[in-house]
Amino acid sequence: MKVFASLLMALVASLSSPAFAQFAKPEDAVKYRQGALTVIATHFGRIGAMANGRVPYDAKAAVENAQIVADLARLPWAGFGPGTDKISQKAKAEIWTQQPKFTEHADKMVAETSKLLAAAKTNNLDNLKAAFGPAAASCKACHDSFRNN
Amino acid sequence: MKVFASLLMALVASLSSPAFAQFAKPEDAVKYRQGALTVIATHFGRIGAMANGRVPYDAKAAVENAQIVADLARLPWAGFGPGTDKISQKAKAEIWTQQPKFTEHADKMVAETSKLLAAAKTNNLDNLKAAFGPAAASCKACHDSFRNN
Repeated sequence: MKVFASLLMALVASLSSPAFAQFAKPEDAVKYRQGALTVIATHFGRIGAMANGRVPYDAKAAVENAQIVADLARLPWAGFGPGTDKISQKAKAEIWTQQPKFTEHADKMVAETSKLLAAAKTNNLDNLKAAFGPAAASCKACHDSFRNN
Repeated sequence: MKVFASLLMALVASLSSPAFAQFAKPEDAVKYRQGALTVIATHFGRIGAMANGRVPYDAKAAVENAQIVADLARLPWAGFGPGTDKISQKAKAEIWTQQPKFTEHADKMVAETSKLLAAAKTNNLDNLKAAFGPAAASCKACHDSFRNN
């Protein structure tokens, strides 16, 4: 009976969480969040190469990359729903034990990547550089607190 | 000298291919294309659930999902550059031996997902259903020809 009650509670929890309900199984959610973060990191890295002078500044490419980063910034977080905490060794338990802090970091990243897109659209390398730093810091802050290396 | 010439040619080839030049190593390109396709498949599947009546039609959610699919549809193909053909067992050799056909399939998917977004924006379930079929067929046609199951 205890087992049944636990199962029932888990079912209710999963149905009442829209994020979890959108993935058929927790493994799908993990694959999704990792996929979204990989695409974000790729395009963010291309902006960083310009901001840091490793490749020539290309205003059009900067906007395209920043647009993809900003479009995707809201996505990964739905993949950190209940039941997804034991699947990847990279995700620290603190994601689920300190959820308000995790959400704050995610919101900060969304805000900073939105500013980065606005900066890219000015077609000015100095503006891009100025916005890149805080955006990169928002990634790093979350990785430092919530990701195993 | 022969080895040097080969290395030089490989270097020139990698620099002249914008897609390849954008990834530090072929493994990164594979991870990127798989990540993008995972995110696309997730959101496309949510539209399919509505189009096929498995979940109630939600016009706003349909547009949001279709927007993400359309935004990402152009991305995965850059991850199929030279040197990325032996890494994933899912990618058939034909991707590289029949490149014009592969590109045609990719272009078709981009076009159909763009139509799907336009259909979603009409806020009409019949329009969504009508556009979902051809979009799903464009995924399937490419998978049938170029992906091992």
